[in-house]
Amino acid sequence: MANAAAARRGSLSMMATVATPGAASVKRLTSPEEELLKNTDVFIFDCDGVIWRGDSLIDKVPSVLEKLRAMGKRMFFVTNNSTKSRKGYKSKFSSLGLDVQDEEIFSSSFAAAAYLEQKNFKATGKKVYVIGEVGIGEELDLIGVPHIGGPADKGKTIELTPGYALEIDHDVGAVVVGFDRHFNYHKIQYAQLAINENGAEFIATNMDAVTHLTDAQEWAGAGSMVGCIKGCTGKEPTLVGKPSPLMIDYIVYKYKIPKDKICMVGDRLDTDILFGKDNGLKTVLTLSGVTSEEKLLGAANKIHPDFFVSSIADFFP
Amino acid sequence: MANAAAARRGSLSMMATVATPGAASVKRLTSPEEELLKNTDVFIFDCDGVIWRGDSLIDKVPSVLEKLRAMGKRMFFVTNNSTKSRKGYKSKFSSLGLDVQDEEIFSSSFAAAAYLEQKNFKATGKKVYVIGEVGIGEELDLIGVPHIGGPADKGKTIELTPGYALEIDHDVGAVVVGFDRHFNYHKIQYAQLAINENGAEFIATNMDAVTHLTDAQEWAGAGSMVGCIKGCTGKEPTLVGKPSPLMIDYIVYKYKIPKDKICMVGDRLDTDILFGKDNGLKTVLTLSGVTSEEKLLGAANKIHPDFFVSSIADFFP
Repeated sequence: MANAAAARRGSLSMMATVATPGAASVKRLTSPEEELLKNTDVFIFDCDGVIWRGDSLIDKVPSVLEKLRAMGKRMFFVTNNSTKSRKGYKSKFSSLGLDVQDEEIFSSSFAAAAYLEQKNFKATGKKVYVIGEVGIGEELDLIGVPHIGGPADKGKTIELTPGYALEIDHDVGAVVVGFDRHFNYHKIQYAQLAINENGAEFIATNMDAVTHLTDAQEWAGAGSMVGCIKGCTGKEPTLVGKPSPLMIDYIVYKYKIPKDKICMVGDRLDTDILFGKDNGLKTVLTLSGVTSEEKLLGAANKIHPDFFVSSIADFFP
Repeated sequence: MANAAAARRGSLSMMATVATPGAASVKRLTSPEEELLKNTDVFIFDCDGVIWRGDSLIDKVPSVLEKLRAMGKRMFFVTNNSTKSRKGYKSKFSSLGLDVQDEEIFSSSFAAAAYLEQKNFKATGKKVYVIGEVGIGEELDLIGVPHIGGPADKGKTIELTPGYALEIDHDVGAVVVGFDRHFNYHKIQYAQLAINENGAEFIATNMDAVTHLTDAQEWAGAGSMVGCIKGCTGKEPTLVGKPSPLMIDYIVYKYKIPKDKICMVGDRLDTDILFGKDNGLKTVLTLSGVTSEEKLLGAANKIHPDFFVSSIADFFP
């Protein structure tokens, strides 16, 4: 998909501005200093398709980030992927030669912990049941909230005998559901009982239908695991990752930065750009990921970023 | 739940008719011959809560069925449970001492096969990918439609290496999703690719949130597996079990019976009774399952069967 988009970009990259019926307000960024940099204090970057594609860094990204830092800009890196903690993500940045701080990383695993911290969940003395991988548990450890499930429930099966009941811990006060490649019926039933019978809060790291576990194909995302728990509980989750406003509220509150000084940079119209617009941020779409210029400028597209770029290298032409 | 309902029934069973603001039109069946039997040619019975509870037959059911047969009534037994085929269900009836025919049993596994037969799916030369247990595959075998997945994909895992892609059979033209206690990420991704990339039709046996695998607690139902595939595809399935009208259409078409001569008998307001009413059938709610008389007659209930009974033994007082 990214390759096809890249091929399409090649054929259209000579056009600096394009007027189509559906996209009158979409403009290529041509004077970055004037149009963007001087009015922006914080950049929120989506990672996949913006900073890297799969395991490869996107061209010129390190120098762009360096130049932004030299100008005193603050930056955050967001990802809906909950499989790693912020610490886990820092290793990925380091392996690609990027020096970022833990607190600059907003993974949805961190978002789940930040939400529970904000609610003062710890004071309830309750536990969290986790559907997901190591990232969620690592973030819960950092805020001192006890948790069960997660990787420990990998491979568990339900052996049904007449009268059998799955016993659950009645201290489970929240169920956090994220991407989990070891999802199984034990976990489904545990979550169902905790939510339906304990009254535990149902929290989703994200609801992305597909994700990019490898470059070779799209993979069923956390939307699968969350959809499953919706299906057996009839309940809607509290969403903490994109496009929930929680992360923006957190940045505004913690760093005292007005929203109009924040710019969301992403490669997806219906998640990143919509998320930015819904939260009152400036928005820049980069064509270095899954969105093609045809799609962006087509009449069918109703989601219009303030600017678009071929990649964030266009911030410093 | 059934026990609590039974306890509540006991305290109210002396009241033959009850008038409450929300349930003016709900009437206890008092003259079955006059009110029901003489105008009904076909009875469609939900199984769990009507014929049996878990592994126990409900009192007097064999003699009720015998008397109905002696009167020349036709009967069908419906269940949204897809884990068994009709043949598999016949064994359950036999083990409880009930003599029923294969063609009197409408399991949702059969409904999926009947739907594909009606569409002439076999003529496409395509295969079905199954998320579910043995029942679905057994029914597909009977109509000569090839299938993969199902119990054969139990225990499969995805080992992610850079560039890895799960290869799927490009001849998969439909994905049938039912209850599957060996649900795993391999199955989720297989179904996601078949639907999103092959364009396979997404068929759900049923979307029940919970089911009664054992009497001891409610278990996450096929709504879990279906919700999961909705979550990663963004698509709504074709529903073949209750409350889809497919089964009624099949009975009307195959046996040439007008809908007003058919009565749906069930223990759930929001599935069985709603299903009957939506399809223009007569409806009888039995209190022998999950619905209490208070709930039925309460102002909050907006789903009104034509009659209610303590159990189907009330058909022959």
